[in-house]
Amino acid sequence: MAPIRLYYWPEIQGRGEFVRLALEDAGEPYVDVARAEGVRPMMAILRDQSLARPPFAPPFIADGEALIAQTANILFHLGPRLGLAPADDAGRLFVHQLSLTIADLVEEAHDTHHPVGSSLYYEDQKSEALRRAAEFRSERLPNFLGYFERVLGASGGEWLAGEASYADLGLFQIVEGLEYAFPSAMTARRGAWPKVMAVRDRVRQRPRLAAYLASERRIPFNEQGIFRHYPELDA
Amino acid sequence: MAPIRLYYWPEIQGRGEFVRLALEDAGEPYVDVARAEGVRPMMAILRDQSLARPPFAPPFIADGEALIAQTANILFHLGPRLGLAPADDAGRLFVHQLSLTIADLVEEAHDTHHPVGSSLYYEDQKSEALRRAAEFRSERLPNFLGYFERVLGASGGEWLAGEASYADLGLFQIVEGLEYAFPSAMTARRGAWPKVMAVRDRVRQRPRLAAYLASERRIPFNEQGIFRHYPELDA
Repeated sequence: MAPIRLYYWPEIQGRGEFVRLALEDAGEPYVDVARAEGVRPMMAILRDQSLARPPFAPPFIADGEALIAQTANILFHLGPRLGLAPADDAGRLFVHQLSLTIADLVEEAHDTHHPVGSSLYYEDQKSEALRRAAEFRSERLPNFLGYFERVLGASGGEWLAGEASYADLGLFQIVEGLEYAFPSAMTARRGAWPKVMAVRDRVRQRPRLAAYLASERRIPFNEQGIFRHYPELDA
Repeated sequence: MAPIRLYYWPEIQGRGEFVRLALEDAGEPYVDVARAEGVRPMMAILRDQSLARPPFAPPFIADGEALIAQTANILFHLGPRLGLAPADDAGRLFVHQLSLTIADLVEEAHDTHHPVGSSLYYEDQKSEALRRAAEFRSERLPNFLGYFERVLGASGGEWLAGEASYADLGLFQIVEGLEYAFPSAMTARRGAWPKVMAVRDRVRQRPRLAAYLASERRIPFNEQGIFRHYPELDA
């Protein structure tokens, strides 16, 4: 079978990183298309009016003939093949539910620096961002991470849902991102989520993932992505 | 089998409405729990620390022993049983992808009036809302509805993906909501999306759904929900 082609912006982790982490953890061959071939093939697909099942936005993948978009949908599709989803339908649905909750947190983390809209620069919405970030740090971040702590308490095991799944990889990624963007807020509160932090540490030590994180394939966090470190938003 | 129990806020359409529409269209028996029994049973589940698979937030359903949360996940689960999803895996995945894109639009529509955060009143974030709504009307709304118009053009049929699916019901709901919240913007632009408007009209005329919409079970749009009519945000 031809390797999976992942279409995503080449200079950020962004939403595409959740797919990269799953592919890398499984050792699945894939082409990170925009990094290997530039963004033109991706833009051509986004503009192609003849596609029966067009994507709305990156990330999307080409898996054989199929084009599949929406991060959580891609992971739902790939999870079983990558050995990163439960075998039973109920477990698979729950991991998907966790993945969608992670996606909600990602959206809210993004909106801390772009509360007015993605088409404007951060500098042009900074006063709004200061307010939104304060609300995120005090209300939303603890709500979300407290929820995952609760799920881990209920699971009674090392992972969110039985064996390691792409939801655990996603939890790793959001903790890493939150620590990058909001180091003060996370340092002050991290004692509240010991099980979440333990999952992050466990994911980081998975051999293929550790190799990926140490490689040049892992794009560093930066101020074009979802998780951005603007000190004023962490104060 | 016991009827499905839907847990959602009793006084708004909100995200729960996407589930209500699917259940009503299929004529599936269900209990809208908070409307029938008050919000206490829902709050008890949200606070229950012993649940193996807890929901993060409403809506969620109890289907037999299973608790299932996240609107798109609920619809993915119920779609086949309700006759509102394709039979093949690829089609089912595409309808889910559309449903997730609808969820993204819903989130952005909500944030027009709450750009700073859900824990604050609209009145306390009105200046931010004015800016975000302008960006939504000029950029995001046309992007999203233009995308669904394109999908309908590619499908070549009356529905987004072959037979009518819960994605078509979702498209109906967002058009209704956008026309409620942004009547001027929608009137000015509606000619750009004739196929989208035709789906809305077709959904509205489905017999069981027409009966539902005319009933007291359909909560009117209001200024506590996702789609709110604040004239200043439509100017």
